[in-house]
Parts: sequence; structure tokens; C-alpha cells
Amino acid sequence: MGNHILTRTREMSPIIHNITNHVSANDCANITLACGASPIMAEELMEMEEITALSSALVINTGVLTEGKLKSMRKAGQRSNELQHPVILDPVGIGASHYRREAILQLLSKIRFRVIRGNASEIKVLHEMICPDSLVGANLTRTLRIRGVDVSEQDKITMDRLEQAIWISQELSRSTGAIIVVTGATDIITEGNDTNLIYNGHPMLGKVAGSGCMLSSLIGAYCGANPKDCLSACIAAVGAMGLGGELAYEKILSREEGTASFRTYLIDYISRLEGGTLEDRIRFERRKNSV
Amino acid sequence: MGNHILTRTREMSPIIHNITNHVSANDCANITLACGASPIMAEELMEMEEITALSSALVINTGVLTEGKLKSMRKAGQRSNELQHPVILDPVGIGASHYRREAILQLLSKIRFRVIRGNASEIKVLHEMICPDSLVGANLTRTLRIRGVDVSEQDKITMDRLEQAIWISQELSRSTGAIIVVTGATDIITEGNDTNLIYNGHPMLGKVAGSGCMLSSLIGAYCGANPKDCLSACIAAVGAMGLGGELAYEKILSREEGTASFRTYLIDYISRLEGGTLEDRIRFERRKNSV
Amino acid sequence: MGNHILTRTREMSPIIHNITNHVSANDCANITLACGASPIMAEELMEMEEITALSSALVINTGVLTEGKLKSMRKAGQRSNELQHPVILDPVGIGASHYRREAILQLLSKIRFRVIRGNASEIKVLHEMICPDSLVGANLTRTLRIRGVDVSEQDKITMDRLEQAIWISQELSRSTGAIIVVTGATDIITEGNDTNLIYNGHPMLGKVAGSGCMLSSLIGAYCGANPKDCLSACIAAVGAMGLGGELAYEKILSREEGTASFRTYLIDYISRLEGGTLEDRIRFERRKNSV
Repeated sequence: MGNHILTRTREMSPIIHNITNHVSANDCANITLACGASPIMAEELMEMEEITALSSALVINTGVLTEGKLKSMRKAGQRSNELQHPVILDPVGIGASHYRREAILQLLSKIRFRVIRGNASEIKVLHEMICPDSLVGANLTRTLRIRGVDVSEQDKITMDRLEQAIWISQELSRSTGAIIVVTGATDIITEGNDTNLIYNGHPMLGKVAGSGCMLSSLIGAYCGANPKDCLSACIAAVGAMGLGGELAYEKILSREEGTASFRTYLIDYISRLEGGTLEDRIRFERRKNSV
Repeated sequence: MGNHILTRTREMSPIIHNITNHVSANDCANITLACGASPIMAEELMEMEEITALSSALVINTGVLTEGKLKSMRKAGQRSNELQHPVILDPVGIGASHYRREAILQLLSKIRFRVIRGNASEIKVLHEMICPDSLVGANLTRTLRIRGVDVSEQDKITMDRLEQAIWISQELSRSTGAIIVVTGATDIITEGNDTNLIYNGHPMLGKVAGSGCMLSSLIGAYCGANPKDCLSACIAAVGAMGLGGELAYEKILSREEGTASFRTYLIDYISRLEGGTLEDRIRFERRKNSV
Repeated sequence: MGNHILTRTREMSPIIHNITNHVSANDCANITLACGASPIMAEELMEMEEITALSSALVINTGVLTEGKLKSMRKAGQRSNELQHPVILDPVGIGASHYRREAILQLLSKIRFRVIRGNASEIKVLHEMICPDSLVGANLTRTLRIRGVDVSEQDKITMDRLEQAIWISQELSRSTGAIIVVTGATDIITEGNDTNLIYNGHPMLGKVAGSGCMLSSLIGAYCGANPKDCLSACIAAVGAMGLGGELAYEKILSREEGTASFRTYLIDYISRLEGGTLEDRIRFERRKNSV
């Protein structure tokens, strides 16, 4: 797990189209380059079809969403589906407004996503929208407190809430056909009942703007180079970010630095990471639940 | 001064809405996270009311202003006023074009700002616009040489020009009802006649793109968590940035680095800063002038 | 070569207008400040004439191009021509879509550019568009494989392909009247037959998002301060970035860091660079070809 994903990305250097937000676009481009892929960030509707045609994957990130970008996302997503490129959705801010929820529902109705990645709050909101009759969903989301773009305190994945989060992810995966990636203290990556847990990571990842966006772009890069093995690509990306967070934290502690240096070392780590190291250090559990 | 402001921000972790520019948006988001708050950067008109409702403060920054953003600023500002959230204005580039001046006048006519922060050139232009009959204003601004988004050489606050700058700030504060924050070699924070001077800082802050924008976002975060004590929040934010600049400069000197490392260490500092340290190291003078 | 260019930029501190993309705008602003100039990034059509009037040079960068920005580029470029300010074109993504090619052709038909900077793939596409009857062009570009915004493997300037790349640059320079800057393992800077090669640099520059954009902004800053000597300004900028890349690489090697630290040290280097150091360390060859 991991070695061939990273190697293939560096060998192939796929072009990855990101339609994202201006807050984290630079970091998303840099992490895409760091892992060996080549980012392109076009947004103009008139060039969407051509940009899609020369890319290997598409990452749609709804941060700072605007009407103009939404049209381009739809066009690029539909064309990517025709060309069978993996499409990744990062539903940033889905809890923040009806506008974003409607926009994301529209995208989900027009585009088949290969991967949907969010924090626990985002995935819970999405689950409630997509699976309104779910008993699990109803119980959980009635207590939902929206926290803008960050995860709310009560949604943080702790051990006793892990099983619920897994259940929601599995149900959402079955309803959408997408791999669901939920990031938190324990990360969940599930395709239907094939559920994978990653125990790497560090809380300081939540103190870097766009660390979630960066992970979605990294997933896009690894999936673009490994379209037949997107589940492994997601596991590798989540593991790499988690390991990067652990190492970056050690580095800033020893150098008496803070969150901005942490961000730098996180991207540094992805640029230096070897597949073998990832395989050695990833703390990973695979579960095949029956439902 | 400072300790309870920082503590309250980390405890409450308020959501801060920034409508800002793509040049410094990432730094603004990161400094907001660094101080313990949670940034959201929405711009789409259709979601402004909801985003405002879940936020605790709004920062309006006119860098790279466009017609689309201007409409959203107006809507978000008015809704913030209704909800009595502090609204901060950073009039970036007010000296650069009639378009920006007209736009900023329009914002000032529709929105009550709790804080207005700028460099000495920006505050002087704003003073001339708002207080055209002022003797102080007329004398000063007739010699104004516009310098784009940076302070002009002749507006830099030196000791002999400090009293003039204080006078302008006080007059502007009385006219607008806002706390006026002027950054320079000596920083001025004034609410009417209650004037506070901060002697911390380093000239290299002027060599980092968006260091002013970052300060405005930090003010927004501290005010969002301490809406009843915005004057102290402004003093704490200006002091924290000044101290951060001093320490970042020491660090790059010892490591043989330059302006980009300086920026990193500045945000690092904010992420590690304790209220006690701020109270110990802030060089601060309070003046209660009679006018 | 170099000393007076850098000194003049720090002394004059020209305002440089960049109409660029949200991926690299922050880095472009920071490198402009690092070299001693003052960046402004306005995009709104209504303020283009005034922003142009207070600036000393204009950098047009077609990354993440949109219809709105295209109009502002045209206006700012035409006004810059009237005021005889140097205008720099960075045709980002020219190979990626018909839309960008049409937009760039339109800009070239309305605006006289003083400098055009791109990687070898971008310059080849541009050459084919501008000089369709060239024997050199026809032979080369028929085999063109588009690589999004990055240079394609087969376009990389190696020793045996250097002469072709020089020929193309010279032909493009004569057709457009602009200085052509092609960056790669060997950098080419040519104005008609006056061709200059720079051997500084490091491959890791290709692993930093927007390193090309940053160079275009640095060229804009040096040209803005030295409008009568744009060829030397281009040589100084290319040499400075190349040297910065070499030194940044040494630094990350010794500190066990990666691509994000490399980016930081690159901007650090520009902020500390003295003209004398540049003259000592630039590896430079001047050729006066006859054609």
C-alpha cells in the first residue's frame, strides 16, 4: 500500500485540474508539484473542455464558491465523467449556507464523484442531505452545530464516536458511489463496506488554513496517476499527510517555531516522501464490515 | 492589557468572516487560525446573510476590489450591523484610484465600522474625504503623494510628524465613530480622545506583502471574541504584530534569512504568543488628550 | 551587469502593477517587495487608467485567465503603452486551450510588450502562432505535446536543443519587437540578434508553483526602475532567480527540507541580494549572432 501509488505519480507526472479557492490555491498547487504531479487551476468556462481533456483528474473545492466557478465546475466535471477521469469533491463550507448546500447538491446530481473528502461536520451535513431517511443520520445531525469551514467540537472523531462516523461514511458511500474520506483524529476511508482507518496525524493540521484542501489536491494527484486504484490512492494520501503532520510537529518543537513553519514542513515532507517510508510508518487498519 | 483578550480568543474560537483580496487571503486565514479563531472567506452575495449570522466579526479589506465583492461587502456589513458584530475596515489602496475612494465612501455611508485600520497615507486620504473642512486635513493632504498600496516616504510617522498623525486620527475617530488604527514606526490606536501609542515593531513588516491585511484580520479575530472591549483588542493585536516583527527579525538575522522567512516567523509568533508575554513586552503609552 | 539595475530598483522603489493569477499573486507581491519595488495588484476595469498612471511598469500574467481580467489587461496595457511604461507578458497556459491562445493573440495585437517570458513550451507555441511560416517553427511545433502550464519533457532546453530554442527566440523577438526570455536549464534572453545565455539555476525551481510568475514579476520590477535598460534588467532578474535557486537548494539540503522551504529561501535570497554578488556569481554568455 502506498509505494506503487507514489512511484507511479512521480513517473507519470499527471496534470491535475483544480477548481478551488484563492485562500489555499497556492498551497494546493505546491503540494501537487511536491508529490510529482503538475497542477493547472483554470476557471474560465470557455476553456473547461480543453483543460479537462489534457488533465488526468479534477479536484472540485467549494471554498469561496461563486456562481462563475460553479458553472465551470459543472462543465469540467461532466466532461471528466465522459473521459472517465477521477473527480474529487471537497465540499468546503457545506454547513455554512443554503447556497453552498444547493450548489453541492446540484454538482452531485450532474457529476459522478470518485472521491468525496471532508471533515466530520461536512460529511455529516452531506449525509443528512443525501440520506434523509437514515436513522443514523437523523439521530446525529439534529444536534448539528455549524462551525463555518472547520469541524465543530462535538463532531470531532473520538473513539466513542468513531463507529457512528464509520456508519455514516459507509451509507454515504453506498448512496453516492464515491469513496468517502473523513479526516480527524482517526481518518476514515471507505468504499461501501471496505473501510480503512488511519491513525497518523497531528492536531496542528487543523491550525493550517487549507490543510484539508491540500489533502484533497493530493488525493486528486494520486488518483490521477492511479485511476484504477483510487482507494489505495486515498489511503496513501491520507497517510502521507498524517505522517507529514507528525514530522512537521517534531520539527517545529525542536526549532521553537509555530503554525506557519509547520505548513512549510508539511509540504516539504510530501516532496521528500518515499513510498517505502510511507509503508513503514503508516498506522493503518482495514475492516470489512457486513451491514 | 492583552492577557484576557488572547485567552478569550483561544477559548471562544470565534468564526471571523473576511472579505479580502487574493494576494493576502491565505496569510489572513493563517493568522486568524494562529490566534485561535476560525476564518471564513465567503464572497458570493447569495450566502452573505447566513455567513454573517454564524460569524462573530467581519473584516472588509478593499485590496483588489471588484464590483462583485463590493456588493457582498455592503450586504455583509449591513447584516453585521444589525447583529451588532464588530466590523473592521482596511481601506487598501484608497489613495490609488477614484474608484476605490468612491467605493469606500459608499461602504462608510452604509455600514458602521467599529475599527478602521490603515497606514498613515491611507488614513490621511480617508481623513481628507471625511473631514474636508478640517484645518489639519487641508494642510496635510494637499502635499499628499500617492504611493499605491504602501505608505509614502513623506507620510511615514516620525517623531515630529506624530502629533499631526494623532490629531488626524482623533478627528477621524470622532467623525466616523470608529476606533482608528494607524500603523507605522509608532502605531496609533485612538477612540475619540483616548489615544494609545505602541512603540513595538520593525521596518521589515513593510517588506512583507499583506502584513497590514494580516493585522486587520488579527484585529477582527480579537474583536470578534471581545466585542465589548474592541479598544483593548486593537491594542493587543497591534502589540502582538509589533512584537512578532521584532522577534522574527532577530530570528532571520541569526539564521541568515530574508523577508519570506520573516513572514513565516511572524505568523509562528502569533500562534505561540501567550497573553502574559504580550503584557510584559508591549511598549505602550496611553494619552488622554483634551481637544 | 546587474549592480546598477538592483541599486536603482532599491533607490527608486517603483510601483509595479501586476494583473496576475490567484495561485501565485502572493509570491509575486512578495518578490516585488523583496527586490525593493512596491506591488499593486488591481483588476477592476474602472480603476485601470489611474492605477497605470501611478505605476512604472505592468506585468500581465495569463494564469487562471478570465474574461473580466482580460478586459482590464487590455485597458492597462494600452494605457501603459501611451505612457511608455514597460509591459511584460507571461503567457501562462498558452498551450492549454484555444481560449488562452486567442486571448493572448488579442493582447499582442493591442499592446506592445517590452518583454515576453515563458518556458520553452510556451515560447514555442507563441512562435508558431506569430511566425506560422517559419521553417524552424513548423518543424518544431508539429511535434508539440502540450503539458498544461509546465514545460513538456521534450521541450526542455538541453544542449543539443539549445540552438533551435535560440533561433525561435530570435525570430519571435524580431516579429514582436519584444525581448524574449526563455527559462530552462540554460536561460535565453534575446533582443533580435543580441542573445544572452545564463547558466545559473536549479531544477527544483520547476517544483515551486509560480516560480515562472515570480520571475516575470521580478523582471517587471527591474524594468520599471530601469526602463531604458530592459535587456540588462532581464539578465539581472534571470541571473538573480538562478542564483537564488542554487543557494536555496544548498540550504534545504543542509537542513533536510523540501520544496516549500526552497520557495521561502528563494524569496529570502532576492531580498538580501547585492548587485556586487550578482555580478560575481552570474554565469553568463553573450552572443551576437548574424542571421
